[in-house]
Amino acid sequence: MPHQNLEIKILDCTLRDGGYYTNWDFDKDLVKIYFESFNKLPVEYLELGYRSNPMKSYLGEYFYCPPYVLENAKALSNKKLVVILNEKDIRAEDVPDLLSPCVGYLDMVRIAIDPKNFKRALVLAQAVKKLGFEVGFNVMYMSLWEQEKEFLKQIKDVHGIVDYFYMVDSFGGVYPEEVKKTYELVRNQTDVKIGFHGHNNLEMGLINTLTAIECGAAMVDTTVTGMGRGAGNLSTELLLTSLNSKGLIDLDFNALSKVVDPFSKMQNEYGWGTNLPYMVSGAHSLPQKDVMEWVTKRYYSLNSIIRALSNQSQGIKDN
Amino acid sequence: MPHQNLEIKILDCTLRDGGYYTNWDFDKDLVKIYFESFNKLPVEYLELGYRSNPMKSYLGEYFYCPPYVLENAKALSNKKLVVILNEKDIRAEDVPDLLSPCVGYLDMVRIAIDPKNFKRALVLAQAVKKLGFEVGFNVMYMSLWEQEKEFLKQIKDVHGIVDYFYMVDSFGGVYPEEVKKTYELVRNQTDVKIGFHGHNNLEMGLINTLTAIECGAAMVDTTVTGMGRGAGNLSTELLLTSLNSKGLIDLDFNALSKVVDPFSKMQNEYGWGTNLPYMVSGAHSLPQKDVMEWVTKRYYSLNSIIRALSNQSQGIKDN
Repeated sequence: MPHQNLEIKILDCTLRDGGYYTNWDFDKDLVKIYFESFNKLPVEYLELGYRSNPMKSYLGEYFYCPPYVLENAKALSNKKLVVILNEKDIRAEDVPDLLSPCVGYLDMVRIAIDPKNFKRALVLAQAVKKLGFEVGFNVMYMSLWEQEKEFLKQIKDVHGIVDYFYMVDSFGGVYPEEVKKTYELVRNQTDVKIGFHGHNNLEMGLINTLTAIECGAAMVDTTVTGMGRGAGNLSTELLLTSLNSKGLIDLDFNALSKVVDPFSKMQNEYGWGTNLPYMVSGAHSLPQKDVMEWVTKRYYSLNSIIRALSNQSQGIKDN
Repeated sequence: MPHQNLEIKILDCTLRDGGYYTNWDFDKDLVKIYFESFNKLPVEYLELGYRSNPMKSYLGEYFYCPPYVLENAKALSNKKLVVILNEKDIRAEDVPDLLSPCVGYLDMVRIAIDPKNFKRALVLAQAVKKLGFEVGFNVMYMSLWEQEKEFLKQIKDVHGIVDYFYMVDSFGGVYPEEVKKTYELVRNQTDVKIGFHGHNNLEMGLINTLTAIECGAAMVDTTVTGMGRGAGNLSTELLLTSLNSKGLIDLDFNALSKVVDPFSKMQNEYGWGTNLPYMVSGAHSLPQKDVMEWVTKRYYSLNSIIRALSNQSQGIKDN
């Protein structure tokens, strides 16, 4: 194992988060390069994709992670393997059928949660924990948590159920000061390990993640080339390069280059990464997909979006 | 003038810094869009390009900024106009011929300086100041200043000669803590106004610039879409969007979009922005052009570059 002066664990969720662009199908050779490269990198967990009940329209292999996908991953990878569930789509009674086939392949199951559904998520989490997995809570919309009074009171109930409590910067508008405040907000309620998943709308991915690490975060997310919806995530290569230059991890740059190259080519094709509409959505806690749509379909100019927001916050009706 | 709660001045140097890709020639219509858009944006200074003695190979209009270029800018723009000189190429005796034609067009002349040549730069600055321009010092390699003992003693001599003393993150490897330390280093020597020019190798452009502003910086640089050599700069649209979302400036997003669009297209073509080799060069204070060349021409792998650096710092000869 590479020498590490670092307690923080890194979770790479390229296939899960990036699957948005490829409908969660990935080329077999690309996946092989991915696993083989990461075997040489100081990243502990790889999140492969989702587990889900069947959806109406077609979704690819990494949206369902059927057993053959898990077997392939287990055969190729020496890392801990993870999938994520969308809490809004999964009920506790689905869990035995959905997750029993994953026993022996996966180390962790994460759950993407809207704070409004926290209580329900805890019930789901208990069902998941029963099967012996580590449980991660990816709690979304961290920039709005201060107003979610019910949720704040429920945080302490994660004790004994949840292994990693993640702050997710869903809108990509958080700055380092807010990372610190939110970390404290959680830490004041529970001793559970805290994680951070940043987005790069304001190019705050790295500094926010380093700040979370300084606060004491136990795990942080990255994706290769930041692959992810819209503005995307903190890129794995940026975090690893930064931590290596600070003397905190050893790093095989050749292995890193090997996995970055094919995803860079895909980035030229699919075009993830921030841009002005994503900066605006991030800075104003708006769904980035909506802002991008309004602007590209010429429904609204950015000026009218901002004006409507400003009117809204001043209680003026939108015209 | 747009309402501003903000004392900081912003200098956009897209044409000067981005000219690297276009050999300092720009399409006439693009330049028109640039000036007209910026007339509506809360940016105080526009740096057009260089003034230079004739160079051996061809360089375009914005490398020499001849009078007709300055006249065109003055006619189209309501902003303060700036050019920059490379200190290593200009002697004090060149200044009357080089800069007298600029009187009445330019408000400021900046000088890009290696700290090792600081004393000589002060002589050049005095010649520039005599013509009535504001003088900016863009002092490079801020991450290395602590070791430049002669330079540190000379900083105080800027008094009465230099109007803006810029910290330039030449390698793009600086973090917010270093911005604060370097700011203090300068402030301890002089009361002169301090500026900051960041690079985006580690995607630290925005947070470093916001940190400089918090310290008390009087002026900061940006370029549209971060256009600039290699990893490029803090993008104008990101800084303006961030400051606007904090309630510090009014912002005409339509004008901003209008100037961002054509430069975004150029970005797809020329490909500025960070990547793994630029992250490595930034994190290790190496010239980014060299690292990119070594890697792309397959002279050296990133591993061997890092190993050589590590050997070097441990006093082991490179093999």
